[in-house]
Amino acid sequence: MSATTRMRVGIAGATGYTGCELVRLLARHDRVTLVGLAHGPGSPDESMSTLFPELAGLCDLPVGDLATLLATPLDAVFLALPHCAAMAAAAQFLARKVRVIDLSADYRLRDARVYAATYATPHQDPANLAHAVYGLCEHYRAQIADARLVANPGCYVTGALLPLLPLLKARLIDPQRLIIDAKSGVSGAGKKVAPGLHFCAINESFKAYSVFTHRHAPEIEQELSVAAGAPVQVVFTPHLLPIQRGILSTMYVESIRPNMSSELAAAYHAAYGNEFFVRVKGADATVELQHVTHTNFCDISWFVRGTQLVITSALDNLMKGAAGQAVQNFNIMTGCAETTGLI
Amino acid sequence: MSATTRMRVGIAGATGYTGCELVRLLARHDRVTLVGLAHGPGSPDESMSTLFPELAGLCDLPVGDLATLLATPLDAVFLALPHCAAMAAAAQFLARKVRVIDLSADYRLRDARVYAATYATPHQDPANLAHAVYGLCEHYRAQIADARLVANPGCYVTGALLPLLPLLKARLIDPQRLIIDAKSGVSGAGKKVAPGLHFCAINESFKAYSVFTHRHAPEIEQELSVAAGAPVQVVFTPHLLPIQRGILSTMYVESIRPNMSSELAAAYHAAYGNEFFVRVKGADATVELQHVTHTNFCDISWFVRGTQLVITSALDNLMKGAAGQAVQNFNIMTGCAETTGLI
Amino acid sequence: MSATTRMRVGIAGATGYTGCELVRLLARHDRVTLVGLAHGPGSPDESMSTLFPELAGLCDLPVGDLATLLATPLDAVFLALPHCAAMAAAAQFLARKVRVIDLSADYRLRDARVYAATYATPHQDPANLAHAVYGLCEHYRAQIADARLVANPGCYVTGALLPLLPLLKARLIDPQRLIIDAKSGVSGAGKKVAPGLHFCAINESFKAYSVFTHRHAPEIEQELSVAAGAPVQVVFTPHLLPIQRGILSTMYVESIRPNMSSELAAAYHAAYGNEFFVRVKGADATVELQHVTHTNFCDISWFVRGTQLVITSALDNLMKGAAGQAVQNFNIMTGCAETTGLI
Amino acid sequence: MSATTRMRVGIAGATGYTGCELVRLLARHDRVTLVGLAHGPGSPDESMSTLFPELAGLCDLPVGDLATLLATPLDAVFLALPHCAAMAAAAQFLARKVRVIDLSADYRLRDARVYAATYATPHQDPANLAHAVYGLCEHYRAQIADARLVANPGCYVTGALLPLLPLLKARLIDPQRLIIDAKSGVSGAGKKVAPGLHFCAINESFKAYSVFTHRHAPEIEQELSVAAGAPVQVVFTPHLLPIQRGILSTMYVESIRPNMSSELAAAYHAAYGNEFFVRVKGADATVELQHVTHTNFCDISWFVRGTQLVITSALDNLMKGAAGQAVQNFNIMTGCAETTGLI
Repeated sequence: MSATTRMRVGIAGATGYTGCELVRLLARHDRVTLVGLAHGPGSPDESMSTLFPELAGLCDLPVGDLATLLATPLDAVFLALPHCAAMAAAAQFLARKVRVIDLSADYRLRDARVYAATYATPHQDPANLAHAVYGLCEHYRAQIADARLVANPGCYVTGALLPLLPLLKARLIDPQRLIIDAKSGVSGAGKKVAPGLHFCAINESFKAYSVFTHRHAPEIEQELSVAAGAPVQVVFTPHLLPIQRGILSTMYVESIRPNMSSELAAAYHAAYGNEFFVRVKGADATVELQHVTHTNFCDISWFVRGTQLVITSALDNLMKGAAGQAVQNFNIMTGCAETTGLI
Repeated sequence: MSATTRMRVGIAGATGYTGCELVRLLARHDRVTLVGLAHGPGSPDESMSTLFPELAGLCDLPVGDLATLLATPLDAVFLALPHCAAMAAAAQFLARKVRVIDLSADYRLRDARVYAATYATPHQDPANLAHAVYGLCEHYRAQIADARLVANPGCYVTGALLPLLPLLKARLIDPQRLIIDAKSGVSGAGKKVAPGLHFCAINESFKAYSVFTHRHAPEIEQELSVAAGAPVQVVFTPHLLPIQRGILSTMYVESIRPNMSSELAAAYHAAYGNEFFVRVKGADATVELQHVTHTNFCDISWFVRGTQLVITSALDNLMKGAAGQAVQNFNIMTGCAETTGLI
Repeated sequence: MSATTRMRVGIAGATGYTGCELVRLLARHDRVTLVGLAHGPGSPDESMSTLFPELAGLCDLPVGDLATLLATPLDAVFLALPHCAAMAAAAQFLARKVRVIDLSADYRLRDARVYAATYATPHQDPANLAHAVYGLCEHYRAQIADARLVANPGCYVTGALLPLLPLLKARLIDPQRLIIDAKSGVSGAGKKVAPGLHFCAINESFKAYSVFTHRHAPEIEQELSVAAGAPVQVVFTPHLLPIQRGILSTMYVESIRPNMSSELAAAYHAAYGNEFFVRVKGADATVELQHVTHTNFCDISWFVRGTQLVITSALDNLMKGAAGQAVQNFNIMTGCAETTGLI
Repeated sequence: MSATTRMRVGIAGATGYTGCELVRLLARHDRVTLVGLAHGPGSPDESMSTLFPELAGLCDLPVGDLATLLATPLDAVFLALPHCAAMAAAAQFLARKVRVIDLSADYRLRDARVYAATYATPHQDPANLAHAVYGLCEHYRAQIADARLVANPGCYVTGALLPLLPLLKARLIDPQRLIIDAKSGVSGAGKKVAPGLHFCAINESFKAYSVFTHRHAPEIEQELSVAAGAPVQVVFTPHLLPIQRGILSTMYVESIRPNMSSELAAAYHAAYGNEFFVRVKGADATVELQHVTHTNFCDISWFVRGTQLVITSALDNLMKGAAGQAVQNFNIMTGCAETTGLI
């Protein structure tokens, strides 16, 4: 593909937080022409910049219905739709030979039964599910390059997997003792209008939620189990931070021998030494949300006391946790430099 | 009334921000027994501490419907209901000889035609309106003491009137050039669930709203006109601060002669020198929200350059701007020390 | 003591966050007359309300040096001084027969060697240390009542001990697997002027700090070891929340048998069923900072999956975590109703 | 200059908020190679990404002293130094034929006496001051293109001038009645470590500061006077918002005749209809900080009641109010497309 060719790209579900972030990223992507935006069912047709005055001058495209987007010639489409809605749309785009990056949960869980149990609805598209590639860029890059359908990972999931996978794969930690205490900004909860998301319900407050019941746990466990070579169950506790964006995860893990900090460093550098978007900050380093918000980076550090490990990671839930990683997946799929549109 | 007698008090509309703050204040008021709480129409009956876990141990009363509260023997009732709902309820409590402190707008505007124009609905209770006393404590104390029905002032209104009234009454400023640039925390917008009140719509942002159209302007103008002895029109611009509570008002006014700082000081000390809850901070002093939030104080300062005056005031919209001033009114009405339950 | 007698109380270190909160609480305490305030070494003498305009009208006392306060007749003194400074002052007040509530760390660690190792300085006052009572009100009430010197617990420590002690005492959990992931508002870091406490360094951010090295860990371990009857080591990870006040702790613990939720409930109700300031919210309940800030409550809830327990607690670091608990201790020491000045 | 040539650019004062934002922008500017960074006097030499972990991978250049930067061959330099330090450096770079974009106040005030009165120090470089071009891009584009030295406007100043200049030039408003009520995020106050910038001093608070004394007023007045053709004095009141970035200005102005909204619209469209970075939102439109933060846009709207105008503008103080406008100036000076590196 010539360096000057631009690909025709659409976004379905352009009006949520994630969709809006995708618009912002793709509007300035050198190799992309945004040719169509669709809203979710029941929304009115308006221009993107009417709906989001912040985008005036950056993206003034109309936002129409899904049928119109399906009828538009596209090289690739990003789906930022709710689960269920995403799989209905994905199947139609794939049938039209459009490559799909799906940001919903619909193709993340390989086992349709786990999907049904987690999302309380049967999977509608097992045929495509069988071919979907899990879009954790740094761990599935080769498969992503050839994929027709990429399932972009969950935000909490990315923050847990990037630090834990290299340690599990290198057999440095006990897979039966994994605790993930995660704290997320509010944009991770989406745009729905609910009493619990009122400014005054969140500002100057903090709480845990969905303890033992959050839908990202099975997704985390799926990938950790692959790495561990055996079923893994995690304790995963999400919390709601009174900030706009960012996920900081504090993980409590046990190493197989005491004082393995140098082995950890080696495993991380083997996994991420050549990765642009994963920054291994080292032992005893402070990672903080301010270092990663509005970027596609995930920062990682660790602390060791005997066999006790505390591992911290930080990322922006709308970027590396959603739209940013989706664009990174697109870049891999289309042979663009991986940082295109992301720095 | 003996010092040990407690009065029987009810609250209608106990579940909004203002109602909740009233519960908190009255639950620890030495001279009050809270005997009944009512929610607005359509809400379920539950206990206050189920609805508001923060009140567990402080107030576990049930919240019932208005009819039940009307049937409860009361010495006084606070109405924290929406406008219209308040005047329907007020008339019924007054008919039962219960003294009423109304926190809605229903009895604040003396002219029913202004009410109708401002709130887009005819006034339903002109008979009681004729006898309502405007509850700006420091300016109507004598009338409040004898009132059966007190109209508790608006939050923005209190922040504008307390600094401007003494200057107008003393004829120190031009009544035709009054600009009020006010900034409020989000609790002032109430508890309704709306996209514009989502955490992410407000956090790290700031905007003006209802420019030239806010409903508090006619109320401000009513009281300033009385003080000026002639009709006054103000420019009033409210803004939304990304914080929980507090209103800071910056007022732009012209004095009738240059360099009148000492005359201003004299007027303020005459008006408020003996007032506990209005703190005259003086010329060139900084007033800030942090000094007044969670208190019933209103702080005032001013800056002079020739005839140009910048006057700043700060108060807590839920306290001196609503529930606090309502309790202060109650204290005046019932002969309690004015600070009871407020410090 | 007659109900109308007021005790003469002083505060040393009145100008920090904790001291200021103490002033606010004691200024409205029915049984107290604040008779003297002292600043730390090197500060100028000014009135409390000049230093803190928010206290104007509430406390206008002068803030002088420690020598002046030592010369003032007092029934009790609160020390809100830095560690080391506190023990020098405490000894002098005790020598004058003044009862001391010390909010620093100086008398919390019973073993002077642990103190020396933790605070990098030898203990200066082992004689009084031997008689100090650890002021965790709900667990040491009898000893506190008779104490001359109470060591008020650390803020993080209170948030960890209140939920963990009853479970350890009842032998319901494994004392060798205790993880405390704690998140604190910024006032917990104190008032010092440092780049890391600049508004822009904290706002919209979040991080872990002092992993494996925080000074509150030995204090937590001291009390948990007593309860467990054997030495306990915890994993304790503090985090900095971009809010003013509040500590939420998420604790990861293992029960000795699966599915012990009812045993936990029983242990908590036995420990706190009659306590006003510890609210046992129950299994699967949400505790959040907003429910406890500006109060002396500590809320507790838990979640069970097999032997895995997630326990959450919330308190206000300046109240139950510092000044509030100090006043509660004072109430116990002086026979006041325990809630006096605290609701 | 060929499209593929990159210019050699340096930044002096790279470690403040503005310098850091410049690094971020220039690191991804297609036509720039960052070849040297200097810190202010007295700072240690370290790499940019050690000092700012958020820049790791984006800019790992060393930050050295000014002498080293002066010795580096450069096409242009950005000065993000304190006033006084900037003019000393500027003269040296200009002597080496390096084009200078100065973000300090040193070359903004054309009259050295006004500078001396405002900044309490004599101007040290009147020779270069005489040739400096005021870098308000949309109003001085032609002069900027040829300038050797551009004085980048103040943040508050830009927010006031962009909306007011077109109205004054078109003689639509009274130049003697201009009130600017401005509200800024904390990054505008810079990085200095001071009690007033402690997180807890700002969070959940709000205040006016420097009333009638802020240094940006003479700069605003200079440019408005040019536009009005006569000396103009403004009332300018800055306020501190508890957010990271953004300035919203609410301006109170009088039109020369009533109901001139369409004339305002015409003036704005004449001035900015072809401008990318000034978005004229129209009458009665809401501008808000969230729409402009992290962008180089300035949004403008207005409200009319008779001759009374309320005009609102919003921009990001670190972008259009500082680093963004500086890069825009650089683009104009070097013939780059004006949006290069800014979208």
